[in-house]
Amino acid sequence: MSTQPARGMRDFLPEDVRRREYVVGVIRNVYDRYGFEPLETPAAENIETLLGKYGDEGNKLIFKILKRGEQEASGQADLALRYDLTVPLARVVAEYQSRLPRFFKRYQIQPVWRADRPARGRFREFYQCDIDSVGSTSPVVEAEQIAAVSEILTTLGFDDFSIRLNHRGLLAGMLEWATVPHALHGDALVALDKRDKIGEDGVRQELIGRGLSESAANRLLSVTAFLPAAVEPAAETAALRNELGEVPAAVAALDNLDRIVQLAGASAHLAIDKSLARGLSYYTGAIMEISVRDLPGSLGGGGRYDNLIGMFLGTDIPACGFSLGLERILVVMQERGMFPPHVEQSFVDVVVAAMDDTAQKAAMETAAELRKNERLRVDIYPETTRKMDKIFKHVDQRKARFIAILGTDEVAAGTVTVRNVATKTKLTMSRGEVASFIARTLSDSPDSGR
Amino acid sequence: MSTQPARGMRDFLPEDVRRREYVVGVIRNVYDRYGFEPLETPAAENIETLLGKYGDEGNKLIFKILKRGEQEASGQADLALRYDLTVPLARVVAEYQSRLPRFFKRYQIQPVWRADRPARGRFREFYQCDIDSVGSTSPVVEAEQIAAVSEILTTLGFDDFSIRLNHRGLLAGMLEWATVPHALHGDALVALDKRDKIGEDGVRQELIGRGLSESAANRLLSVTAFLPAAVEPAAETAALRNELGEVPAAVAALDNLDRIVQLAGASAHLAIDKSLARGLSYYTGAIMEISVRDLPGSLGGGGRYDNLIGMFLGTDIPACGFSLGLERILVVMQERGMFPPHVEQSFVDVVVAAMDDTAQKAAMETAAELRKNERLRVDIYPETTRKMDKIFKHVDQRKARFIAILGTDEVAAGTVTVRNVATKTKLTMSRGEVASFIARTLSDSPDSGR
Repeated sequence: MSTQPARGMRDFLPEDVRRREYVVGVIRNVYDRYGFEPLETPAAENIETLLGKYGDEGNKLIFKILKRGEQEASGQADLALRYDLTVPLARVVAEYQSRLPRFFKRYQIQPVWRADRPARGRFREFYQCDIDSVGSTSPVVEAEQIAAVSEILTTLGFDDFSIRLNHRGLLAGMLEWATVPHALHGDALVALDKRDKIGEDGVRQELIGRGLSESAANRLLSVTAFLPAAVEPAAETAALRNELGEVPAAVAALDNLDRIVQLAGASAHLAIDKSLARGLSYYTGAIMEISVRDLPGSLGGGGRYDNLIGMFLGTDIPACGFSLGLERILVVMQERGMFPPHVEQSFVDVVVAAMDDTAQKAAMETAAELRKNERLRVDIYPETTRKMDKIFKHVDQRKARFIAILGTDEVAAGTVTVRNVATKTKLTMSRGEVASFIARTLSDSPDSGR
Repeated sequence: MSTQPARGMRDFLPEDVRRREYVVGVIRNVYDRYGFEPLETPAAENIETLLGKYGDEGNKLIFKILKRGEQEASGQADLALRYDLTVPLARVVAEYQSRLPRFFKRYQIQPVWRADRPARGRFREFYQCDIDSVGSTSPVVEAEQIAAVSEILTTLGFDDFSIRLNHRGLLAGMLEWATVPHALHGDALVALDKRDKIGEDGVRQELIGRGLSESAANRLLSVTAFLPAAVEPAAETAALRNELGEVPAAVAALDNLDRIVQLAGASAHLAIDKSLARGLSYYTGAIMEISVRDLPGSLGGGGRYDNLIGMFLGTDIPACGFSLGLERILVVMQERGMFPPHVEQSFVDVVVAAMDDTAQKAAMETAAELRKNERLRVDIYPETTRKMDKIFKHVDQRKARFIAILGTDEVAAGTVTVRNVATKTKLTMSRGEVASFIARTLSDSPDSGR
């Protein structure tokens, strides 16, 4: 029987979980402090909830769950695994509208599943860390989300990220300016979104393949051209105003972008990127994406979607969200060695070991006494042995700092022999002294991380 | 379109998530301090990994995932949702054996999915909080797990729980004593496990229905009879020794139970319950279950399973585990009102509100300054309004303690008007003073929970 995890999914061993928990802890703390409230939804949704929300390509990537019992033989699915956290949020807002504040800000940190072809950094189960603000069209919403995400990245130690900003209204204006027929706007955005993957020539071919004239394709590629050098956002919107000043949709979008940039402030690492399209069809206003130099693709992204909740509720409620991709943040942090020492170092302070069966009861009692100190992490060597090399091997595997040894002599005298693993020194002391001795030595240690 | 979650699954709104996070935090902290290491596995497993591990009834409750792409039409499943955390652990130990310590202690807190008929307190998605110790047959393992679980329940405020302890070897001995044929041992345990649900007469009928003679059924029911009064564990094992002293399997099991009880110590709330059977077929030694008076069923349970890992690895590795059921702990805590105030109270300290568009930028800056104090949770009222009742309504919904108001006057003077929601007093102060004023007032407050 195979013992590997399912294709494209991963087991997280303790050192992986610790790194993930560290990053999630930073994210959760910032979201909390920005007044976002936690929400969780089930892994599985009724299949109708998900189908038709992510476009044709998304539909194909949804994991579907077979009906059960007598209906299993039908081969039909009635449930599907969560594909993102935005559609479940829209469902939740529609279902519990009367219990939620009019301006509802929630965060949600949960896995999603997509049956994509697995590749480096692309998994079939991965975590999204989302914030969404529901109920307001104010640019304060975008600015606050940009500030929160910037603070998370800064806290994690990123200093070179850039939050690229564009606007569906500006894209619509540029499409209009490029004389792309209205009916082809959606197709053109899907093609533009692939510029990172297939290059400008690839996009031109796809645009023409999807029905654009060659001149419209060229106009569109030129007006949305990527600017490799970072340009001051206000200078970029001013240049666009010059070019697109006759297109009302573009002007309104540029006003909105200017206001977002102004409210977000300078520490937000903002740049206008008029080539940014974002794949999902539900965006209606500002769209955003974070990138760092050494990672193709993004660390996260989001945007305004004022119509999605209406698909569940019947009446529209404006909303805007930002999603951080946990796995991509972890990949970059790992490659750059950005984890603080306490995430990578010792996870057990002391291993209590009994030399023989008669000392085992005293060893359990010693462990219980040590555990009364809430700052100590205490392991027990489960078997009795006089072979110290066996205990040393375990202590080494557990990265423990101390060994508390009990044998016949110690039990008779009510003592414990405490060995400092790093200094290889040992001291015999009364049982009641062990906890404070170890705690004191640990807090004197420069790399204790506590 | 329905906006409800899938049948038997639940959305967790912010107040639900906070209660869950509080309990998970206590559990995780104790497991960490007992030297258990975190592990996570994917939600979906290859279907062969799960099938055949949980008995016939378990197999029927597994959620199966349809093959994708061209194979979807086949109606076949290749993946299945995690049904418990023990089988994935066994797979992980087999897969990564060379990277894990010989004595591997892990905790895992993740959801599992079972297509059970939903009922009060029974869900199709629920969290298990498991510890397992791999690699040793020492009774220290059981004793340490019992101590960890006891400490969790005590920390959460439970004082009336009982950890009931039995042993598959003792059950085998009692079955032998009751002259139940070997081939019917498994059937008899499945029936005995239902005593809570269907009563003694129901179990007797099922035993006879499964092929036991009436006299064997009666002997079995009498020797495993439930003792309503708590009996000192040592007295109970002594009584059982008198009755079963001629059955070697029973004597070895009683020796093991006596040692576990001795090592666990008095604070573990232990009781021998010879009627405890536990449904799962993979247990081989001690079995345990926690109960409280006012909850039918259990808060958690576990036991020793020395052969399960061998199903994946080829060679047996001993193991023992304990699983706490998060939802059941939450149900009892909710009914008894056991959550500390800080879990139920204010989650935003201050809402910053701008009276007009010109004050919006200053409001964003004020929020950014307040957020530099890591202990403050700061929300922004997203729209501009002079109608204070709108702001008050939002502040009330967010349970905020303070409002920081900025209008034209405040912007001109570089000040902020701070309103204390509880006392209805307000004070205008310079922007730089607001954070320390609010932090000071909050830490003076007796119910701040911090």
